[in-house]
Amino acid sequence: MAFSPRFKAAVEEAKQGASEGGVPIGACLVAADGKILGRGHNMRIQKDSATIHAEMSALEEAGRLPASAYKGATMYTTLSPCDMCTGACILYKVKRVVMGENKTFVGGESYLAQRGIEVINLKNPECEGLMKKFIKEHPEDWYEDIGEDK
Amino acid sequence: MAFSPRFKAAVEEAKQGASEGGVPIGACLVAADGKILGRGHNMRIQKDSATIHAEMSALEEAGRLPASAYKGATMYTTLSPCDMCTGACILYKVKRVVMGENKTFVGGESYLAQRGIEVINLKNPECEGLMKKFIKEHPEDWYEDIGEDK
Repeated sequence: MAFSPRFKAAVEEAKQGASEGGVPIGACLVAADGKILGRGHNMRIQKDSATIHAEMSALEEAGRLPASAYKGATMYTTLSPCDMCTGACILYKVKRVVMGENKTFVGGESYLAQRGIEVINLKNPECEGLMKKFIKEHPEDWYEDIGEDK
Repeated sequence: MAFSPRFKAAVEEAKQGASEGGVPIGACLVAADGKILGRGHNMRIQKDSATIHAEMSALEEAGRLPASAYKGATMYTTLSPCDMCTGACILYKVKRVVMGENKTFVGGESYLAQRGIEVINLKNPECEGLMKKFIKEHPEDWYEDIGEDK
């Protein structure tokens, strides 16, 4: 799998989230030269947060950067990005979004493409499994995370 | 001005941001019943943050809420929301976005409308003035905040 080395960091983050009892979604922002700029996982439960989704967590860990730092960057995420995280990727003009899966949830993929961002779906069973388990055990937390009524 | 009581809180936040040396953009999330759910301002400079724009700050202060809490809600913000904050308003399905101005910057207004969110522009000179002063004094911080090369 061409994207596996950096994608692995996103999966590790998702597992870390799971081990903390959180929503098991991880992300990793990688610069054009392959350097990891930031990585993180969803912190809704851990930090009582409405905004720290995995992609936001990775962007936040990357910290303040000039626009040039995101040029050619890839956002690896274990799940199709929601509208908020889609917007964040568009704001910073990442080049590519590589997602683990979109069987659990389909976010802003078509809008990403419309805005010129490449979208790749790895259809990863491990990512699907993490979400399946979490949603079965904590459906109310999951629906809250995507702004839906259960 | 029909929206002034709650909009005022957003402007107060923007001024607070200015007094801290930050990007002077404020926001206030108001429930359908008029109760303020959360308010805040851009924290890029104060917290070295790439994601805590004003609207994110207000959503974060509001904390974990079920989808029903955002039903009929209005996001007041002193500036046209960027793509990230546009996405956050869409994720949580706020009913309306009321912005102070869009002379400084035009964000995701058309996409908000496309996704069924009402958009109102108050064309407020005070908000414009805060941004004009900040951009004149700190152009590099402003361009970084909107993901643009200076």
